[in-house]
Amino acid sequence: MSLLVVGSVAFDAVETPFGKRDKMLGGSASHFSISASFFTDVRVVGVVGGDFSREEEEVFIRHGVDTSDLERIPEGKTFLWRGRYDYDLNTAHTLDTQLNVFADFKPKLSEAARRSRLVFLGNIQPDLQREVREQVRGAELVALDTMNLWIEVARESLLEAIKSVDVVIINDAEARQLTAEPNLIRAAREILTWGPKALIVKRGEYGAALITSSTYFAIPAYPLESVFDPTGAGDTFAGGFMGYLASQEKLDEAAMRRAMIFGSVMASFNVEEFGTERVQRLTHEEINERFRAFKQMTHFEEIPFERAVSAAAKNKDEG
Amino acid sequence: MSLLVVGSVAFDAVETPFGKRDKMLGGSASHFSISASFFTDVRVVGVVGGDFSREEEEVFIRHGVDTSDLERIPEGKTFLWRGRYDYDLNTAHTLDTQLNVFADFKPKLSEAARRSRLVFLGNIQPDLQREVREQVRGAELVALDTMNLWIEVARESLLEAIKSVDVVIINDAEARQLTAEPNLIRAAREILTWGPKALIVKRGEYGAALITSSTYFAIPAYPLESVFDPTGAGDTFAGGFMGYLASQEKLDEAAMRRAMIFGSVMASFNVEEFGTERVQRLTHEEINERFRAFKQMTHFEEIPFERAVSAAAKNKDEG
Repeated sequence: MSLLVVGSVAFDAVETPFGKRDKMLGGSASHFSISASFFTDVRVVGVVGGDFSREEEEVFIRHGVDTSDLERIPEGKTFLWRGRYDYDLNTAHTLDTQLNVFADFKPKLSEAARRSRLVFLGNIQPDLQREVREQVRGAELVALDTMNLWIEVARESLLEAIKSVDVVIINDAEARQLTAEPNLIRAAREILTWGPKALIVKRGEYGAALITSSTYFAIPAYPLESVFDPTGAGDTFAGGFMGYLASQEKLDEAAMRRAMIFGSVMASFNVEEFGTERVQRLTHEEINERFRAFKQMTHFEEIPFERAVSAAAKNKDEG
Repeated sequence: MSLLVVGSVAFDAVETPFGKRDKMLGGSASHFSISASFFTDVRVVGVVGGDFSREEEEVFIRHGVDTSDLERIPEGKTFLWRGRYDYDLNTAHTLDTQLNVFADFKPKLSEAARRSRLVFLGNIQPDLQREVREQVRGAELVALDTMNLWIEVARESLLEAIKSVDVVIINDAEARQLTAEPNLIRAAREILTWGPKALIVKRGEYGAALITSSTYFAIPAYPLESVFDPTGAGDTFAGGFMGYLASQEKLDEAAMRRAMIFGSVMASFNVEEFGTERVQRLTHEEINERFRAFKQMTHFEEIPFERAVSAAAKNKDEG
């Protein structure tokens, strides 16, 4: 039942048309692990500086996230990202990136970390993702996220990383960029030939798709009347997806499909408030309620069309 | 069981990266009625010129579409649209529009047309949509499509037309433009306050959503590895949607949901080849097969998450 995440732990400063936060807990590993903690026991591998206070760490502790593999560099500063969203909330405008201690991040896995059953390689330099992958050879399922930057500047290493994992979780623009193929389905088919058993394509407000060589599953996003801050939605999705899977004995297609829903549920809560604020105070009842809402909003009866009722057809039969 | 469509019957000249056609049957009423003909008896109201040959009319006749309300102006020319799609196939670049006889189109409804049970007001000038609406007061369900042009140049008349119908079928950009509301769900809620009982939002490769004041239903698009010509996909969707509804006795939420699937099925076939070529030679078995594929690609088991299995929770319980 153990889940490991390697990624960034950061401070985010975010401005949206609805408000701003100067410094809040962010980063892929933070969003992922808090989300996953509702479903399973999570261990986080990352690095923070001396400015990372007890208060921030308490957020992890409160959710039962194991921080013993979270490296501390007292003389350094924590990764800081400053960004702004305009009214459409689809595009993040980066105002400032201070990598700080994250610039020299070398993931160090404890013995317990290496024995994890499921592993999520958050969006970090692909060489590091491969190093971590090498250390968790016994994992039952390893998933990977990435970003446009690595597709551009570290393509070969990224392809090697992708070849070594079971599930790739990216957005549709990244899938197209990775394959230079404008048709998403063809892009997906190509990525699957490289090695992964499944590709998850995140489509923001349009939902997400799970594609394997023989199956296709697609779900809408939860309909929200107000999106407040989309930062971390993708990692929160991945946390719900991997966290739910970690709670399941069989990692088959049916479990993956339910995991897609739980991932979407968590992401939908994430964007309702700044950073991890909404997800932090979630309850299992709220999660299950929204899971049931997904069933309601996608269900239809499987009744094929029968032309028999048509007058024209009747005439033909009788004529 | 009768369905009426008012819209354009046209010649389309289309270029895509995959080929071109200099002159083929097009227009909203053509795509709509051929699609709907697989489910019900359709009557088309429109206008064509002297260049509209027996060969083009045969396409309607072969599908049992009633063309007795299709006006012929022998001395005029049929509406012609010339367009080009680039590799992404999402945007149509209009190269030429010759309205011809369509410029002075005044829909004339026969007695039989006025008694139609369901009516689709295709994308024409909103004043004309309102005139037709007035003449089918007894219809059980009237739906309307429109476009960005009318939102810009005939907004007041369009709002009146929308107030008078039961279902609005538009794409997401139009829903946002109509309400000046970037959030689609809020845009939908606003449109529903104007009068319609349901709003259908077409999202192209991302699928479609059916929104009422109390329900939300969203489906993905059928995953296609090659989209050949997207012209008419929206009208083909509307034809499948309205055609299926016309075949049903009860026009309730469950029927509307299945109609959404049949609409998407028809649209997915439409884009596989030029114009109406693929839809023209469809079979009911092919339609039902793709309907079943939609069920497979959206189905998941409704099993809420139970934290009971977690070691942490167990420890807490036992501690």
